Amino acid sequence: MAIYDDQNIFAKVLRGEIPSYKVYENEQTFAFLDIMPRSPGHTLVIPKAAVRGILDISADEFVEVARTTRRIALAAVSAFNAGGVIVQQFSEPASGQVVLHMHMHVMPMTAGIDLLPAQTRKEDPKVLEQHTTRLIAAIKEQMQRA
Amino acid sequence: MAIYDDQNIFAKVLRGEIPSYKVYENEQTFAFLDIMPRSPGHTLVIPKAAVRGILDISADEFVEVARTTRRIALAAVSAFNAGGVIVQQFSEPASGQVVLHMHMHVMPMTAGIDLLPAQTRKEDPKVLEQHTTRLIAAIKEQMQRA
Repeated sequence: MAIYDDQNIFAKVLRGEIPSYKVYENEQTFAFLDIMPRSPGHTLVIPKAAVRGILDISADEFVEVARTTRRIALAAVSAFNAGGVIVQQFSEPASGQVVLHMHMHVMPMTAGIDLLPAQTRKEDPKVLEQHTTRLIAAIKEQMQRA
Repeated sequence: MAIYDDQNIFAKVLRGEIPSYKVYENEQTFAFLDIMPRSPGHTLVIPKAAVRGILDISADEFVEVARTTRRIALAAVSAFNAGGVIVQQFSEPASGQVVLHMHMHVMPMTAGIDLLPAQTRKEDPKVLEQHTTRLIAAIKEQMQRA
């Protein structure tokens, strides 16, 4: 297993060295919008632990990623009036992983509209700000219901 | 949220009404080979609970799916000498979900080899039997190490 490099971009997001469109955070996990969304509301859920992917994360840490992923999926489908959702995680460059800090993609889906290809275009910051607000409200509502 | 239909094919697999290439089972989850693998060792992890996807599964049930998914991912990468792995889950037809019982795809990946398109071809049963044996051995080894 290759070594974790703490200079990756998501490690910098976690340390607050670069900004992010944060929508949720708890003790073990952090969630923020993908700035090149493949669907409206495309969110990344990451562990705070220094791990590359599913092959080096502990079972207990992965469980926390899963809990947050479910929470975000429910909220995102509601916030973006989606009909479904895709959850996806790539581990190691052989799988297509680019940023080597574990991240779970949560992509709300609408019937008949495919995902954009990965890393097609940067979304307008104003749209990302609106989506952040919308998603934060839906997460709060979802947590009150749970 | 649409209703769970217990006549779906994975419900029949769980009830033993149709055969499967089972590689792992515990109280809450069940794992078996995809008979139309997108990569060698492509495995499906499903909850025993009667749920369609991430939008109707309970947090506790999803955590168990996550634990088994991690276990299978580690074992499959080892068993198939893979360089990485993709974990993927579709919820609701709007996302492309076909069988409406929650299933997590675990697909070992080799650098330079893309996934086959979904549902391209049925694998040779002899190959699936060999892969089942290989994966079961790797899961046992992985559990002894854990």
